[in-house]
Amino acid sequence: MIRRVDPLERLTAATRERTAAGLRRTLRPREPGHFQSGTLDLASNDYLGLSRDPRLAEGAIEAVRTWGTGSTGSRLVTGTTGLHTALEARLAEFTCMPDALVFSSGYLANLGVLTALRPGLIVSDQGNHASLIDGCRLARCPVVVTPHRDVAAVDAALDGARDAVVVTDAVFSVDGDLAPLRELHAVVRSRGALLVIDEAHALGVVGPGGRGAAYAAGLAGEPDVILTVTLSKSLASQGGAVLGAPQVIETMVDTARSFVFDTGLAPASAGAAAAALDVLAAEPALAERARDRARRLAGIADALGLETTSPAAAVVPVIIGDPHDAVRAAEICSGYDVRVGCFRPPSVPYGRACLRLTARASLDEAELTTVTRALTGVKEQIGPYSARNAEATRR
Amino acid sequence: MIRRVDPLERLTAATRERTAAGLRRTLRPREPGHFQSGTLDLASNDYLGLSRDPRLAEGAIEAVRTWGTGSTGSRLVTGTTGLHTALEARLAEFTCMPDALVFSSGYLANLGVLTALRPGLIVSDQGNHASLIDGCRLARCPVVVTPHRDVAAVDAALDGARDAVVVTDAVFSVDGDLAPLRELHAVVRSRGALLVIDEAHALGVVGPGGRGAAYAAGLAGEPDVILTVTLSKSLASQGGAVLGAPQVIETMVDTARSFVFDTGLAPASAGAAAAALDVLAAEPALAERARDRARRLAGIADALGLETTSPAAAVVPVIIGDPHDAVRAAEICSGYDVRVGCFRPPSVPYGRACLRLTARASLDEAELTTVTRALTGVKEQIGPYSARNAEATRR
Ligand SMILES: Cc1ncc(COP(=O)(O)O)c(C=O)c1O
Ligand SMILES: Cc1ncc(COP(=O)(O)O)c(C=O)c1O
Repeated sequence: MIRRVDPLERLTAATRERTAAGLRRTLRPREPGHFQSGTLDLASNDYLGLSRDPRLAEGAIEAVRTWGTGSTGSRLVTGTTGLHTALEARLAEFTCMPDALVFSSGYLANLGVLTALRPGLIVSDQGNHASLIDGCRLARCPVVVTPHRDVAAVDAALDGARDAVVVTDAVFSVDGDLAPLRELHAVVRSRGALLVIDEAHALGVVGPGGRGAAYAAGLAGEPDVILTVTLSKSLASQGGAVLGAPQVIETMVDTARSFVFDTGLAPASAGAAAAALDVLAAEPALAERARDRARRLAGIADALGLETTSPAAAVVPVIIGDPHDAVRAAEICSGYDVRVGCFRPPSVPYGRACLRLTARASLDEAELTTVTRALTGVKEQIGPYSARNAEATRR
Repeated sequence: MIRRVDPLERLTAATRERTAAGLRRTLRPREPGHFQSGTLDLASNDYLGLSRDPRLAEGAIEAVRTWGTGSTGSRLVTGTTGLHTALEARLAEFTCMPDALVFSSGYLANLGVLTALRPGLIVSDQGNHASLIDGCRLARCPVVVTPHRDVAAVDAALDGARDAVVVTDAVFSVDGDLAPLRELHAVVRSRGALLVIDEAHALGVVGPGGRGAAYAAGLAGEPDVILTVTLSKSLASQGGAVLGAPQVIETMVDTARSFVFDTGLAPASAGAAAAALDVLAAEPALAERARDRARRLAGIADALGLETTSPAAAVVPVIIGDPHDAVRAAEICSGYDVRVGCFRPPSVPYGRACLRLTARASLDEAELTTVTRALTGVKEQIGPYSARNAEATRR
């Protein structure tokens, strides 16, 4: 038999193509003192600045001392500790939902809920997060992708459908805008469907005290509303959860493959997330402070003529357009010691590469001044998106 | 418009059916002192007994103090710390693989590798873990499921295939048997395919010093071999990794959705896993001790006439058959203060419900005597599978 070509050759070729298209990615490890020693973090999802909070560290350390470093098995075998069930009770209480189930990540919570509900149809917003899209794919049912925030399209897609599930990010992860939750729920209710809301970027930031977008829209506790959350953003830990009616949670416990066949969340992460909920309960103003800083960031970009949005939570995009320009813009910010996210296809649509600035509740005036300087640099060296667009049209 | 029936009603109905079929599952939280205060753990995947090891706790605590409680973002934005890259280097070195990439779980590592390789065909053993099956589903390519450990069937499936990937557990998660890795690799090599081996239950247990099944089979470092591991079993932490040639790792960094769009592993878990690798390097005999205890457990079951296997790693199944009997058998063990896993459909084929006993390197003679007593109870009250089978045939 003739030995075929190198099986890695096609990977090498694909990598070459990504290089040419400006789509390579590099891991840049942080050093321990990174964000303390002058670099301004506008890239992380640590919206409340809790990841270095001593109260969370104490929660994590106490959990390691009490329970060990791993949960040692799947949640249904040995992977459930008293810490996991306590965290579930706290999450349900905080979001005013009937019941909660903790997964090892928000990603796996999303896969779990969309598959275990066994939908007859999923209606999914085109801006939804990759983990929701993967959940749609894994659910192996018809999926209708609706235009961004288009309630009428959702209603039309539900016409005649059985056992339908509508799924949306509460706050979209790159654009930072809010889903029309109340309107979506009215449609879902009238059609007898279920509404799954991913609160990843809303928990801890949106709504009174950061109780989330569903709570703010008056939907918490409605029987046809299911939430997913991540413990890895505002709560500065790792893990995720599904929240909903007891019937939903029972279904997850028995049949969600990403729950049943996955090791339980590490005790340290459960302990840190529980401590974060304590902090949020004690300091309800943190959420509003994060939203205020986001509005300030958007105001700076807007005043410079850069394209941005009115942020509903802590995520502020600045549209650059071309992926190479976006990388350059992020480098310009780096030159001012400001670290920002840089999103390129396939994370965003082609032609919409952007910087993603995230607000933190603790951002102060001096730091906002630094942001102004960095974005001025971007504007001067790259120019606003609209100007570049116009130029592209002229050529 | 007429309001439709309660959208949760179908979930309630499905739950009723699972109840009737003996397929409900209950979360039983452990108490902190559980395994210290007399209960014998034969259910966890803490094969080396490291989850309560002070050296791992120190690794986790040090990581929290240095890096905080969360990684704060996706690995490509702010979620990579020096700890993550150091752990990757250590994992690669320990398994003798060229390069490694850490994911937030073994589950997401498996989804990542099977999708990002963009296979033209996946050939998957029918005993593979749920996360590999989900990876096959997500890859959206033709999938051939081959009979358990059937190398000829794999070879036949590869005939004429392009860009094929063969995937197998190294040690199967419920039966505990070993994949025929050398033979599979010969077939994969001759066909120009890639071989993905999930070392979840092999790392730390199989091979010299616990370097894994690929290493033991002489396959570590072969360019067409890719490994996935979990940090949550022998390494007593949380997380997972993909190991392979630099071309493979570059492909994962740029395109694996469960890597790109997921928050990086929590520092505490990375720190604990790194400490576990130190322990394994310092005490290479741990792996052999875990295998020895597994053979002792199987010997006890076999001597009682219960159906079991020759364990290749730390997993020892005892076949019961009927799911209700399996639950009863686990309860009998509980009565002797022995906690065992109980696996029922869909985790195992119908009619093959079983107890799953896991060995720990630290099991001592007194504990093995307790196991003998518990399994004697199972035999006396339920009887061996073969006898029940014969009876079922007579009726
Ligand atoms: C909207 C959204 N949902 C889910 C996730 C996944 O959560 P996790 O990182 O906890 O897996 C993310 C990002 O990570 C996200 O942005
Ligand atoms: C064979 C196998 N692969 C992968 C996994 C998933 O690893 P993790 O629990 O780290 O997500 C498991 C079990 O959890 C497993 O048994």
